[in-house]
Amino acid sequence: MIDSLLKKIDELNNPTVVGLDPTLEMMPGSLKANLFEQYGKTPEAVGRIFTAFNKEIIDSVADIVPAVKPQIAMYEKYGLEGLKAYADTIRYAAEKGLIVIGDIKRGDISSTAAAYAAHIGGTDIEGEEFDLWQEDWITVNPYLGVDGIQPFIDACNKKDRGIFVLVKTSNPSSSQLQDIVVDGHTIYERVAELVEEWGRQSMGTLGYSRIGAVVGATHKEQGEKLRKLMPQTFFLVPGYGAQGGTGADLRGFFDKEGRGCIVNSSRGITAAYKKDSRYGDKVGEAARDAALAMKNDLR
Amino acid sequence: MIDSLLKKIDELNNPTVVGLDPTLEMMPGSLKANLFEQYGKTPEAVGRIFTAFNKEIIDSVADIVPAVKPQIAMYEKYGLEGLKAYADTIRYAAEKGLIVIGDIKRGDISSTAAAYAAHIGGTDIEGEEFDLWQEDWITVNPYLGVDGIQPFIDACNKKDRGIFVLVKTSNPSSSQLQDIVVDGHTIYERVAELVEEWGRQSMGTLGYSRIGAVVGATHKEQGEKLRKLMPQTFFLVPGYGAQGGTGADLRGFFDKEGRGCIVNSSRGITAAYKKDSRYGDKVGEAARDAALAMKNDLR
Repeated sequence: MIDSLLKKIDELNNPTVVGLDPTLEMMPGSLKANLFEQYGKTPEAVGRIFTAFNKEIIDSVADIVPAVKPQIAMYEKYGLEGLKAYADTIRYAAEKGLIVIGDIKRGDISSTAAAYAAHIGGTDIEGEEFDLWQEDWITVNPYLGVDGIQPFIDACNKKDRGIFVLVKTSNPSSSQLQDIVVDGHTIYERVAELVEEWGRQSMGTLGYSRIGAVVGATHKEQGEKLRKLMPQTFFLVPGYGAQGGTGADLRGFFDKEGRGCIVNSSRGITAAYKKDSRYGDKVGEAARDAALAMKNDLR
Repeated sequence: MIDSLLKKIDELNNPTVVGLDPTLEMMPGSLKANLFEQYGKTPEAVGRIFTAFNKEIIDSVADIVPAVKPQIAMYEKYGLEGLKAYADTIRYAAEKGLIVIGDIKRGDISSTAAAYAAHIGGTDIEGEEFDLWQEDWITVNPYLGVDGIQPFIDACNKKDRGIFVLVKTSNPSSSQLQDIVVDGHTIYERVAELVEEWGRQSMGTLGYSRIGAVVGATHKEQGEKLRKLMPQTFFLVPGYGAQGGTGADLRGFFDKEGRGCIVNSSRGITAAYKKDSRYGDKVGEAARDAALAMKNDLR
């Protein structure tokens, strides 16, 4: 999967992943009105609104971006109906040939982490195999240490899928824990070393491993430092656009061949129609224009 | 909710929470055979098996323990049908008067954390309020810092519910990050100070706050130290029994009045029927005996 991701980025010449993080505020009025009328003000209606919205985004960008990243929290907020929309979105994106990164940030102790690893490793029921979530990649939280990560690594190797471990997140208070300095090195550097080490069990054939890292776009210098510290680790970079990161800030996150990263934009693409009234409710058209503009900025 | 939890523990004279972490291996053969026959080897069958099993446990302990703690990973492994069993279990436990701690260990940046906070804070759909998950407490991961925690704190205060922040987990490799020493203090002590500080916004009337901490039973000395460092913070203590902690090890986790903790046991109670063939498939009877034995050990 790390090889497929690298190839797809090269092929499209575009290291962008579109974040599918729907909120009711983001949805066009016409779509909401229609489905609330049919299903009432219910979680079912919201699930259907989100799925319809995501499908329009996916249809409009599937030939120009390699991947999408649904953020599961936005769906989990709406209970089981919300999670159904999450699963339906993933299935639809996969049908359209997109790589899917599930932003789930799970993390727990060993046996429990093994259960979460079903997201990428599948589920066995008395000898029958199920792939119930179907993400190609997921994000995971390293706070519990390697015995909480190993089950995910095993799943990656078994199914040729991947994980992105949180190393340095894009939010302001990420510094509270992640930037604590020990013996001249920050905690996130310590995690970075662990991730690079874990990745050695899981190398693809193109120089990068299946064990990636989340490195926020809002930390330019740290990104450059982490690229050097983790030469075989592919980065998922959130925080571009809405959170303040720009294409120029990200130069040092890439390797010398311009590889090694995929940069996420969520609202900047999916809610682009709201920024220019000429789009009206043409969500897909605006998203495509925004995705093309981002591609240019990243090049 | 912190007041209700303290009162319920006092009333039953029992600081035990029963972990509902079902696995197929744990289920009695008769129950599996019956539901696999009806629903095939499917996630739906597994969801129904787990729900039936949990109901039997709940029925047999609801008058002697104050709370149950379903671990969402074990359900999420089985997709939407698994999560339906999670939700059904919570609803049933609440009907039986039990306090429910959802072990979900979520954590993300601010707006995303706000979406996860729906677990305790509820979900608004165009002015209609839904409580779709219905946990009374949830566990959360602090790796992203306070802006990822604040939305949960807000939800706690709004709905009088609670969170347990991971401070020191019970697994062996918890030391990899949590035990790193900075200026003479470990990372988990640093997190402990933050949790105690966050808790000041959320005090109940009995000396403890709605912002609790997860402190593993497998770390006796650390538990005593953390009790001193966090005098107003209630502890959720995993790792008793199966993971090696005993009642005597936990003395220092409690305050002088013998309050301040709830201790989790999962397999030790729910799979007790497997340890003694005289129980046969009498899951509930064995669970009740094990829960009473644990109560005595903790006293």
